[in-house]
Amino acid sequence: MSLTPEQLAEIDAQRGTTTATRRPSVAALEAMLFQPLPVLDHGFVRVIDYMGDDAAIVQAARVSYGRGTRRASEDAGLIRYLMRHRHSTPFEMCEIKYHVKLPIFIARQWIRHRTANVNEYSARYSIMEREFYLPAPAQLAAQSVSNRQGRGEALDGAAAAAVLDLLREDASRCHAHYLDLLNEDIDGAPRDPGRAGIARELARMNLTLNTYTQWYWKIDLHNLLNFLSLRLDPHAQYEIRVYAEAMLNTLAAWVPLAHQAFLDYRLGAATLSAPMLAVLRRRLAGVAVDQANSGLSAREWRELEAILQGESLA
Amino acid sequence: MSLTPEQLAEIDAQRGTTTATRRPSVAALEAMLFQPLPVLDHGFVRVIDYMGDDAAIVQAARVSYGRGTRRASEDAGLIRYLMRHRHSTPFEMCEIKYHVKLPIFIARQWIRHRTANVNEYSARYSIMEREFYLPAPAQLAAQSVSNRQGRGEALDGAAAAAVLDLLREDASRCHAHYLDLLNEDIDGAPRDPGRAGIARELARMNLTLNTYTQWYWKIDLHNLLNFLSLRLDPHAQYEIRVYAEAMLNTLAAWVPLAHQAFLDYRLGAATLSAPMLAVLRRRLAGVAVDQANSGLSAREWRELEAILQGESLA
Amino acid sequence: MSLTPEQLAEIDAQRGTTTATRRPSVAALEAMLFQPLPVLDHGFVRVIDYMGDDAAIVQAARVSYGRGTRRASEDAGLIRYLMRHRHSTPFEMCEIKYHVKLPIFIARQWIRHRTANVNEYSARYSIMEREFYLPAPAQLAAQSVSNRQGRGEALDGAAAAAVLDLLREDASRCHAHYLDLLNEDIDGAPRDPGRAGIARELARMNLTLNTYTQWYWKIDLHNLLNFLSLRLDPHAQYEIRVYAEAMLNTLAAWVPLAHQAFLDYRLGAATLSAPMLAVLRRRLAGVAVDQANSGLSAREWRELEAILQGESLA
Amino acid sequence: MSLTPEQLAEIDAQRGTTTATRRPSVAALEAMLFQPLPVLDHGFVRVIDYMGDDAAIVQAARVSYGRGTRRASEDAGLIRYLMRHRHSTPFEMCEIKYHVKLPIFIARQWIRHRTANVNEYSARYSIMEREFYLPAPAQLAAQSVSNRQGRGEALDGAAAAAVLDLLREDASRCHAHYLDLLNEDIDGAPRDPGRAGIARELARMNLTLNTYTQWYWKIDLHNLLNFLSLRLDPHAQYEIRVYAEAMLNTLAAWVPLAHQAFLDYRLGAATLSAPMLAVLRRRLAGVAVDQANSGLSAREWRELEAILQGESLA
Repeated sequence: MSLTPEQLAEIDAQRGTTTATRRPSVAALEAMLFQPLPVLDHGFVRVIDYMGDDAAIVQAARVSYGRGTRRASEDAGLIRYLMRHRHSTPFEMCEIKYHVKLPIFIARQWIRHRTANVNEYSARYSIMEREFYLPAPAQLAAQSVSNRQGRGEALDGAAAAAVLDLLREDASRCHAHYLDLLNEDIDGAPRDPGRAGIARELARMNLTLNTYTQWYWKIDLHNLLNFLSLRLDPHAQYEIRVYAEAMLNTLAAWVPLAHQAFLDYRLGAATLSAPMLAVLRRRLAGVAVDQANSGLSAREWRELEAILQGESLA
Repeated sequence: MSLTPEQLAEIDAQRGTTTATRRPSVAALEAMLFQPLPVLDHGFVRVIDYMGDDAAIVQAARVSYGRGTRRASEDAGLIRYLMRHRHSTPFEMCEIKYHVKLPIFIARQWIRHRTANVNEYSARYSIMEREFYLPAPAQLAAQSVSNRQGRGEALDGAAAAAVLDLLREDASRCHAHYLDLLNEDIDGAPRDPGRAGIARELARMNLTLNTYTQWYWKIDLHNLLNFLSLRLDPHAQYEIRVYAEAMLNTLAAWVPLAHQAFLDYRLGAATLSAPMLAVLRRRLAGVAVDQANSGLSAREWRELEAILQGESLA
Repeated sequence: MSLTPEQLAEIDAQRGTTTATRRPSVAALEAMLFQPLPVLDHGFVRVIDYMGDDAAIVQAARVSYGRGTRRASEDAGLIRYLMRHRHSTPFEMCEIKYHVKLPIFIARQWIRHRTANVNEYSARYSIMEREFYLPAPAQLAAQSVSNRQGRGEALDGAAAAAVLDLLREDASRCHAHYLDLLNEDIDGAPRDPGRAGIARELARMNLTLNTYTQWYWKIDLHNLLNFLSLRLDPHAQYEIRVYAEAMLNTLAAWVPLAHQAFLDYRLGAATLSAPMLAVLRRRLAGVAVDQANSGLSAREWRELEAILQGESLA
Repeated sequence: MSLTPEQLAEIDAQRGTTTATRRPSVAALEAMLFQPLPVLDHGFVRVIDYMGDDAAIVQAARVSYGRGTRRASEDAGLIRYLMRHRHSTPFEMCEIKYHVKLPIFIARQWIRHRTANVNEYSARYSIMEREFYLPAPAQLAAQSVSNRQGRGEALDGAAAAAVLDLLREDASRCHAHYLDLLNEDIDGAPRDPGRAGIARELARMNLTLNTYTQWYWKIDLHNLLNFLSLRLDPHAQYEIRVYAEAMLNTLAAWVPLAHQAFLDYRLGAATLSAPMLAVLRRRLAGVAVDQANSGLSAREWRELEAILQGESLA
């Protein structure tokens, strides 16, 4: 994460200003408001604004005139019931806004979640910073042999260094040529008055996909939980999972009851198919079941084993 | 509007509580927070929560690290530019939540706006109040002869009284029978222990469409402007237009710059078709144009006349 | 279901017309195209149009140049994999359009599914038919004592008859008064020239919520599966569940592979929470677990028992 | 556009297969079905499937039992009325599915339209082809001086050649290194058995933003018109506008009545703000108005002049 002194000063100035409000506030989230949570080598997640709290979920579920909350245990019970039974609309009544800095190839995954509001930094209008993602060596892994979308073992030190050199050089050269194409410096100052640059909307095509971009991203709590449950999955790409982990921390600060219910009933839960349930019932009745007589494919059998042994299926 | 003392006390209690926040607050909207704005005979709109302000639109458009605002005139100019050119995403960065009480037949129109979050009072779970909409006599109008979806002249006093009697009697009888079907009092107390009622999810089918329901309704500013521009239109049904008018007042308090831009570039604007523009260019060039030589249908000709004379097309 | 001879003739005429197309067609769905499938006493579901088939799911998942299908077993395996792992986007590539006739109080539940396209018969513009839903006696049940949203035992014959009389009389009277308010016959013919009726958009408020309405409703396959999984649930209200059941039959005809995968991995599946999985692991390890030492609430314990015994939780 | 013989054969095979259907078919669109319409140097748009036609719009607007069409002039009049008055739901009843090949930096603009279904070729799972966009020399233009998001004059021949050399070399080198990182050939054959490559989900970050990707993209007609009206605008980037132009041709073949109404009431129309309308009324009344006494900003005054002179505002 590499913020300029001006950016840090802007953030500090905003953190220093408080006003009185009749709206519900959440002290734990206020404490982290505006502050960048570092992710990857240059990325971050910052909470910019939020609406609602745990009580707002209860209030909406009850269509209340006031806060609508009762005893704390009743509120927790209602939130847990709503989460367990997938009553999604009360969770939609909370909203959160983030400022995120992330590599473009991750932004392309992220944007597939359509139920959010987005304002991205415009490379048609502005010049892209010279910042690109270089993985930590531990993340430089070979293609998985068992999983066509995942990673296997990490490269050894020399091989990793060679990869990083190559990534760094290509990204650097492409960005330098991008400025050449613009005929501008990074701060927009014109360079050679004797020749024309090309338009920003064109020059950006020469950048590599690990270039960092940034956006404001706003979403309701229900859809945030969907995003997190997909992107915290062990099958999600590491580079987006670390953003989801940072956001999970903001969730714990913001809506602690919903956060715990999410851990219990979504993240830690498992869905068993009809054939899996049939196997389970036989086993609980004392019948020995193996894959051959289970009615499950080899792949589903492994998935069931993993669930019952409490492993994640990496 | 008929709130119980308990409901009014809940609202007062909520209004009496303030906390400190680092989030932007809007004093003019805080002043009306939670208070019911009366609409129709028993309905209301209440602002329950909000996120963002005029500056948040600017901040998102600039993907800023801090508040991102500059001189007030620059901010106003940017908001007006965004509104004029239909750059919608920065307006999506503000969010507002309402509690609305409204007749069911209006709720059925309203819910067609799909880009909002809704929690409605559940008639599967709860008993519906004995409250139904009876139009003010001035609103009891005949079908329009020129517009198959609109209203014409108001009925005279005796005819209006007869209509109201009929509406009142049918709604009252249906609600009384609804309680009979439930075999419950309005507060849920059981009545005749010697017989079974029917389930709430069934009994509700005996209610009339002017029965009041209520919901929490949350929407971003961009989609709220779409809602308002459709429902403030003179062709919108009166009973939903008055809700839109109450919400327009909350808009003026919340985001005064966006509100003014909305008046200038959306509500007060008119879209001229290609054939209408061709007529206009001929007229400005001094050519006399009438409907026969205009290339417009009679209906489009009337629409153009109305636009140029500054009339709304009721 | 009560279609007029004219309506039946229109349907027959449409069924009698075939054209040649390069698009994929599904013979089993073509066989039921346009035909009303009766639901409740006057309702129906008709398939009006469709796009895609099982192979289109495969084709989209592979971003193919041609049909993209391989051996039948491979295609089935891919579809089952996509369903099991909630890869939703390939299912979005199929689309279906229905014409549905249904009581208004059910339409109000149904419309909460926002990811569909809807054109409803307009009571601002047209006159509503004199058709209302009267439950079959077996459906007239008391409020459930265990479930605040459900039904318990059916009423006995005399009590049921009394309920039906009351529902019929109120709906009939309200509809008759609706025509009086309009001062029109059901076919739009004016009645008493000596007095004015009120506008259609107003008069409709006097109808009861069991009045039938109708709409065109179009949805992609992914969102249809979400709709069906919610509305086929034993907790769904009977009156919407029967529509979902009729639509499930159209699903079987349209995309048989996706339909079977849906039965195995969605409808027949169960989600076990983290605490439930912990109980299960102890039991499979031979530990005796009861509710007291399970860490589950009484309610969750019952839910787990029901899953393991293969019962639905009515 | 560079399809392999295998891809062309797949397309031909699919074009050669016809079946009988009861669904409405559109001969002019059937004629172009599956065929790639070339866009840019290697891109294309192909229509893969469609649902509905002009009559389906009418049918939905009337909630018909049969086709619902009447005389051709009545249908055209209804479609034009719906378009003029922004009655969007009947247009949502038609759906179209495209296969599109496009540069990544354009895909990033395109995906911002959220109301569509997308399946993109996966670079986590598959190897990206060595195909990248190089602008035609006439498109290599300098940044506009008047418009911070647009282009000005084209570069002269030598400068353009230098730009193209640089773009070609950087994209080529980055793609070659991408294969080195994978330690795979373009067809997935492993290269050096003595060393490990890195996972596909990682290696892709070394590609430049002008690399071609492809996706299946499905959208309803209403949202397609929104997409086209934004992307056919003279302010839209050239590289996305040419895709929109190809799609406009498919629109003309598919729904000719809606297409003509779209030209008249959307593409060729102009929205005049309240202050612009006030100026217009004064001018039509014979008053001489200039910018100084118009109440318009200099920018709005130029926009009004352009509208009235029938110029587009490039």
